[in-house]
Amino acid sequence: MTISQRRERLRRRLATIDLDAMLVTDLVNVRYLAGFTGSNAALLIRTGDETPVLVTDGRYRTQAAQQAPDAEVVIERACAPCLARRAASDGIRRLGFESHVVTVDAFTALTKAAGDAVELVRAPGTVEALREVKDAGEIALLRLACEAGDAALADLVERGGLRPGRTEKDVRNDLEALMLAHGADGPSFETIVAAGPNSAIPHHRPTDAVLAAGDFVKIDFGALVAGYHSDMTRTFVLGSAAQWQLDVYDLVESAQRAGRDALAPGVALSAVDAASRQVIAEAGFAENFGHGLGHGVGLQIHEAPGINATAAGTLLAGSAVTVEPGVYLPDRGGVRIEDTLVVGESAPDLLTRFPKELVIV
Amino acid sequence: MTISQRRERLRRRLATIDLDAMLVTDLVNVRYLAGFTGSNAALLIRTGDETPVLVTDGRYRTQAAQQAPDAEVVIERACAPCLARRAASDGIRRLGFESHVVTVDAFTALTKAAGDAVELVRAPGTVEALREVKDAGEIALLRLACEAGDAALADLVERGGLRPGRTEKDVRNDLEALMLAHGADGPSFETIVAAGPNSAIPHHRPTDAVLAAGDFVKIDFGALVAGYHSDMTRTFVLGSAAQWQLDVYDLVESAQRAGRDALAPGVALSAVDAASRQVIAEAGFAENFGHGLGHGVGLQIHEAPGINATAAGTLLAGSAVTVEPGVYLPDRGGVRIEDTLVVGESAPDLLTRFPKELVIV
Repeated sequence: MTISQRRERLRRRLATIDLDAMLVTDLVNVRYLAGFTGSNAALLIRTGDETPVLVTDGRYRTQAAQQAPDAEVVIERACAPCLARRAASDGIRRLGFESHVVTVDAFTALTKAAGDAVELVRAPGTVEALREVKDAGEIALLRLACEAGDAALADLVERGGLRPGRTEKDVRNDLEALMLAHGADGPSFETIVAAGPNSAIPHHRPTDAVLAAGDFVKIDFGALVAGYHSDMTRTFVLGSAAQWQLDVYDLVESAQRAGRDALAPGVALSAVDAASRQVIAEAGFAENFGHGLGHGVGLQIHEAPGINATAAGTLLAGSAVTVEPGVYLPDRGGVRIEDTLVVGESAPDLLTRFPKELVIV
Repeated sequence: MTISQRRERLRRRLATIDLDAMLVTDLVNVRYLAGFTGSNAALLIRTGDETPVLVTDGRYRTQAAQQAPDAEVVIERACAPCLARRAASDGIRRLGFESHVVTVDAFTALTKAAGDAVELVRAPGTVEALREVKDAGEIALLRLACEAGDAALADLVERGGLRPGRTEKDVRNDLEALMLAHGADGPSFETIVAAGPNSAIPHHRPTDAVLAAGDFVKIDFGALVAGYHSDMTRTFVLGSAAQWQLDVYDLVESAQRAGRDALAPGVALSAVDAASRQVIAEAGFAENFGHGLGHGVGLQIHEAPGINATAAGTLLAGSAVTVEPGVYLPDRGGVRIEDTLVVGESAPDLLTRFPKELVIV
């Protein structure tokens, strides 16, 4: 799907909710619909005109022309009010805006700029809903991001990067450098490296804690490639594993497989969560899995759909999601295993390919 | 200044604008006032009670207790509405909220939660204004961040990292790895490495462009340390410099010095910009310096005050700011020189210490 086809999908959607145009102010949504990556921008998509209007400031004049050659580019610092005025002069009556993104103060400015003839209509999540289903170009970039993560982690292990005496920060630093070396533009979020008892903390930030023999080492990380985020967690054991570690690992591995096996179009999001959670609950560890099973991933590290017990809705073919159950035993250690996958009509497409068997390093 | 003293400053400020309490939802402001770094939180500061109320979700139960030991911690996913209800039950009448941060949809939820007895009052930028003046602990962290950047760039140059044949991305990757090795938690923003004609683009993203003899190489980067951002730009020449390069470099160096010399408490922000810009304008290059002179830096890479031609207000002692004039010659190359400094009663405190004489590598 080309970027203009993404806009065409949005225009069709706008028509069904009786909007004449949509004012897009979320920068990730602007990127999705116009290909423009500057840090100050807004986009006007009109049902009656194929040409989008992109406003940005003078720093990005050249970049806007290069990245969004089929847009009408307007240079002005206050991007959204500029487009509200434009909507008014174009005779737009019902203008959708991103009420989940626009602040109270920004809305005041928009109202003033739009004037009395334009009705500003809340349209939260409209573009995000389109983004939930990835097109082929997006999946290709997600695959590249996941490959960079896979290759970096493989290198880290091969080079002996996980060994007693190193700190969590050492491991993080190596892994992030290796991702860059494998083509990533950067990490896709703050890398988690959690050793020993720290592995029991779901979202632990790397510290100077030293890796020791017998430790779990939980690594949750991802690579960013051309705006697309990969997300993977693997848990290792240093030296030799105790029986309780083998047991916890096996349990999480089974739960993760159950979650992956449940991924199919039309399945309730809460049912996917339940399929994995049930495995952990039946083993008596329900209390030790205190977060949702997964989330959509793409131009943002967390996007639609959320996969958890209270999620409404169903999985869509073409969604890219994570499946990441964990069992955390306070003061002892924890295991999480996470993949990024694309939901398909047949089996899901596994993008993170690093092995999931317990690696004892 | 301790974190509780920061809250005391805010409480005094609230009293002057007749607010009984402030609902803080910006996560950077929550961090500033409570020390908590989780990704979902809100904070209630009441003029009549020294204890702040911090709401976050179950993922952060342990972290909240550790990072904010003097706060009352409440666990609930919808943080801001929870505190609006709390304000109502505490008898708060006028509750300030961050109207520059709270979205239209979130405001609807807040209004509902607060009920009729609580008046929600716009208080945009209230915490940001306090953050403009850094306390000793903040300056110490900014200094560490700047030192990590200095050391990384020095290492990069010493190791021959800037030489013909390498790509912009190679240089970026090395520099970011070196920052981590020197104690940074990561880069403080997307590193700019711009070689040859690319150096004429103020905000260029590193590409596979190959460095060549005679190129300008402009590097704008920073380190993140414990939440604090450093920001520095240096421009090098590879091999030997042509006369036009020496001339442009000298001009920007003079303009940068003029900007630094103008930093003093009470000086109009626009006058600082003018002091530097005038040097460039008098040499006939006004059109080639198309951005503001600088910005505040701290828990965010861009924060108050902005230093540019249209900025209102004056510099405050204790502000941490950048001074970063540039001259960009399209299709030829450009130079920017940038420091991070703390405004003081006497000379500003220069935090970025890497030399500013033209380095020909």
